[in-house]
Amino acid sequence: MTEHWKLSIRETSQLLRTGEISPTTLVESHLARIENTEHKLNSFITITSENALIEAEKATSEIVEKGVRSPLHGIPIGLKDLYDTKGVLTTVGSKIYRDRMPLADATVVTKLRKAGAILMGKLQMHEFALGATSINPHDGPARNPWDTTRITGGSSGGSGSSVASGQCMAALGTDTGGSVRIPASLCGIVGIKPSFGRISRTGVYPLSWTMDTVGPLTRTVEDAAIMLDEIAGFDPSDKSSVVKESESFRENIGKPIAGKKIAIPQEYFYDVLDEEVLKSFNASLETFRDLGAFSEYVSIPMLDHSLSISGAIMLAEAASVHENNIRQNPDMIGEDVRLKLMQGSLMPASDYIKAQRARTIFNDQINDVFSKYDYIVSPTVALGAPRIDEPFVKIDSKEYSVLALMARLTRPFNICGLPTITIPCGMTKENLPIGLQITGRNFRDVDVIQLAHAYENVTEWSKMWPDL
Amino acid sequence: MTEHWKLSIRETSQLLRTGEISPTTLVESHLARIENTEHKLNSFITITSENALIEAEKATSEIVEKGVRSPLHGIPIGLKDLYDTKGVLTTVGSKIYRDRMPLADATVVTKLRKAGAILMGKLQMHEFALGATSINPHDGPARNPWDTTRITGGSSGGSGSSVASGQCMAALGTDTGGSVRIPASLCGIVGIKPSFGRISRTGVYPLSWTMDTVGPLTRTVEDAAIMLDEIAGFDPSDKSSVVKESESFRENIGKPIAGKKIAIPQEYFYDVLDEEVLKSFNASLETFRDLGAFSEYVSIPMLDHSLSISGAIMLAEAASVHENNIRQNPDMIGEDVRLKLMQGSLMPASDYIKAQRARTIFNDQINDVFSKYDYIVSPTVALGAPRIDEPFVKIDSKEYSVLALMARLTRPFNICGLPTITIPCGMTKENLPIGLQITGRNFRDVDVIQLAHAYENVTEWSKMWPDL
Repeated sequence: MTEHWKLSIRETSQLLRTGEISPTTLVESHLARIENTEHKLNSFITITSENALIEAEKATSEIVEKGVRSPLHGIPIGLKDLYDTKGVLTTVGSKIYRDRMPLADATVVTKLRKAGAILMGKLQMHEFALGATSINPHDGPARNPWDTTRITGGSSGGSGSSVASGQCMAALGTDTGGSVRIPASLCGIVGIKPSFGRISRTGVYPLSWTMDTVGPLTRTVEDAAIMLDEIAGFDPSDKSSVVKESESFRENIGKPIAGKKIAIPQEYFYDVLDEEVLKSFNASLETFRDLGAFSEYVSIPMLDHSLSISGAIMLAEAASVHENNIRQNPDMIGEDVRLKLMQGSLMPASDYIKAQRARTIFNDQINDVFSKYDYIVSPTVALGAPRIDEPFVKIDSKEYSVLALMARLTRPFNICGLPTITIPCGMTKENLPIGLQITGRNFRDVDVIQLAHAYENVTEWSKMWPDL
Repeated sequence: MTEHWKLSIRETSQLLRTGEISPTTLVESHLARIENTEHKLNSFITITSENALIEAEKATSEIVEKGVRSPLHGIPIGLKDLYDTKGVLTTVGSKIYRDRMPLADATVVTKLRKAGAILMGKLQMHEFALGATSINPHDGPARNPWDTTRITGGSSGGSGSSVASGQCMAALGTDTGGSVRIPASLCGIVGIKPSFGRISRTGVYPLSWTMDTVGPLTRTVEDAAIMLDEIAGFDPSDKSSVVKESESFRENIGKPIAGKKIAIPQEYFYDVLDEEVLKSFNASLETFRDLGAFSEYVSIPMLDHSLSISGAIMLAEAASVHENNIRQNPDMIGEDVRLKLMQGSLMPASDYIKAQRARTIFNDQINDVFSKYDYIVSPTVALGAPRIDEPFVKIDSKEYSVLALMARLTRPFNICGLPTITIPCGMTKENLPIGLQITGRNFRDVDVIQLAHAYENVTEWSKMWPDL
């Protein structure tokens, strides 16, 4: 069987359009890939093979009759197990919701179905999305395709491993503190957290209302834009949804980046950083310079408060979301998540208010940067994927908790809600992917996609595959 | 000496323009009025007679040389003692800030000075603005001009008594839960809480960031509009300030209200309501009908949650504002305010978040009403001014705490931030003023002014003076 699962969505869609392959062939190829790899990866909580084949056959005849109706028509995708799917279990990675069967699809799921995408299953995640390792005590850890003894990162861990391994062509994750970008970075793929308010969250199980963001994980930047084109748009049922004229997220792809101004924060990102990550990051700055972009170090002192601001907001809001769970079923929640929720429950309102006020000062400093620069770039995660059995890692001979370290570099951009992408930019000596993080102006997701695509276009990092 | 203090701002400004009176005569007349009444009223914390006379002389020669530069040029006004005034003590009604001397004027104070208004002094208030009686344990209670054994209401109590008694022609109060409207209602004058975001709060001591609103107290509706015309406008230094094209708040004055649609909430406002207040309210609805407006009872079920939503938000935010005061100087704070701040300090973040979420549902229901109606009208306060020495009152033979009862009918409109005015609409048997509350669509302050002016124009309630 041909390795159809190695193609990008763009390439595949071309073949589907011309009839060179059918959705059924494509889905069969992915199901075979899942069968061959899932025992090593543990990407899925629920695999929906039967439905996927039925949908594939339907798509096959639709395409024969009327042609493709979108670039996602017939494309196999996966969903983090917190997207409501009508008639398919949606567990939020928890034991409490083991039998939770939604009565309706999330808005974005409806949109994906309308576009013709085919659901392969529901993906592994950190319990309640409250953590960045995806070491799930109820389902076992999601495993990194580059080294299955290592974590995928999280919380959208299964989304990372399923796309990086070719089980799905794309997946939806959610990003509250880095939960799309961290697994994308550690698994060597593309992950984008769009501007806050861009994509409906109706039917997506919440963690933190003021930071939760829906985002796709894909193997190429253009595929990410294709996904966004289908799922973005105003949704009156989501209070945080923002009205924006429709635009194509692919609009700026291929446009030159010469003359663009890149800001590199001189604080915070370098405090705890693996040497090889730094080397790759510096090399990517060279690439941007070669492409004619201008980069400069800037000072954003409030970055040093990123963790306290985002931490207070996230824990308080998560404790509010899970108020009943923590009261009624604390023993059914994994230890790390339970401790965080209890911490959030005990937080006084004045601390939360203080964090929200600090957030406005933080955002002022970020906005200042964007009055002079087009981008902020930084590493995505401070190191390559840690081992599943090692809760602590050493950087510069100092020891850090993996759980605490994972989201350190991604959380600043959840505070401000700006569009942020991660793309592969190198490999460690141990053959583990390294990610590069690019942030743009509010609602200028197209700019972020433009720079990421330009980088991807002249480098080879996105073309590598793990041996599985 | 002529009783110049009995004139409205509009009338006075006319006389100033033509030179029939001078700012000096006017200020002298008001200082005499203050001297004759202040021992009965206790409206002021600081009287700035000397500066007022100097400013008046300056204004007198300015007007002789160049004419009046605004309808406030030469007009004697007062400020609640939480507006920062450069070089004039600003105590926030507290013992802790007894010696607080601001280094700069609040934005609105700068605007008033530019317009040529003359500051007579800093006005009495409920400590920290956290309460609606203005029974201040450090300065004694503000006393109602209609019966000095009774409260003014609060928290802008001195603003109410000083304007109602002719000590000032207008005053600025602040309204977080009704603190402009309650004293205006109990003292028989006009008070407006403009749309949230209309008027800068920079240099105004905060109580609750998401609800605090600057608003004038005046003797006529047109005078309120004159004040707003001078103080409104975008201020980049205030995060809550909203950019709006400049418009005149007097724009709709005198326009007919025939055909306007008035919604009367059928819940909440009648649960606890003095019989005479109800009678006056019903009579005012008759007046609106006579003027050709259409009124109808509507259901807004979320109104029943007004107190819990606004209470949680106000107490938590106030506790955050006063975190240091409550830790370091609890004994310097009056008992009622100290208890509220302690209650706020102990509130968990999840309760605050829940209140903010309920607020969005509340606002949805209010906005629904405004998709069909131009106004919501209701009584402003459930009864006439209670006695200073009676912390409990009886309505329908049930006993209520005055402190808790005062803001009951005003707080709903701080949750949604819509423009709301109170105007006199009757007198109780004990000769105490009754207020009518009119709320309009967001940023349609001009509509609210229009309806209030139409009512004022055909009734006599605003023309009455207390015997002092």
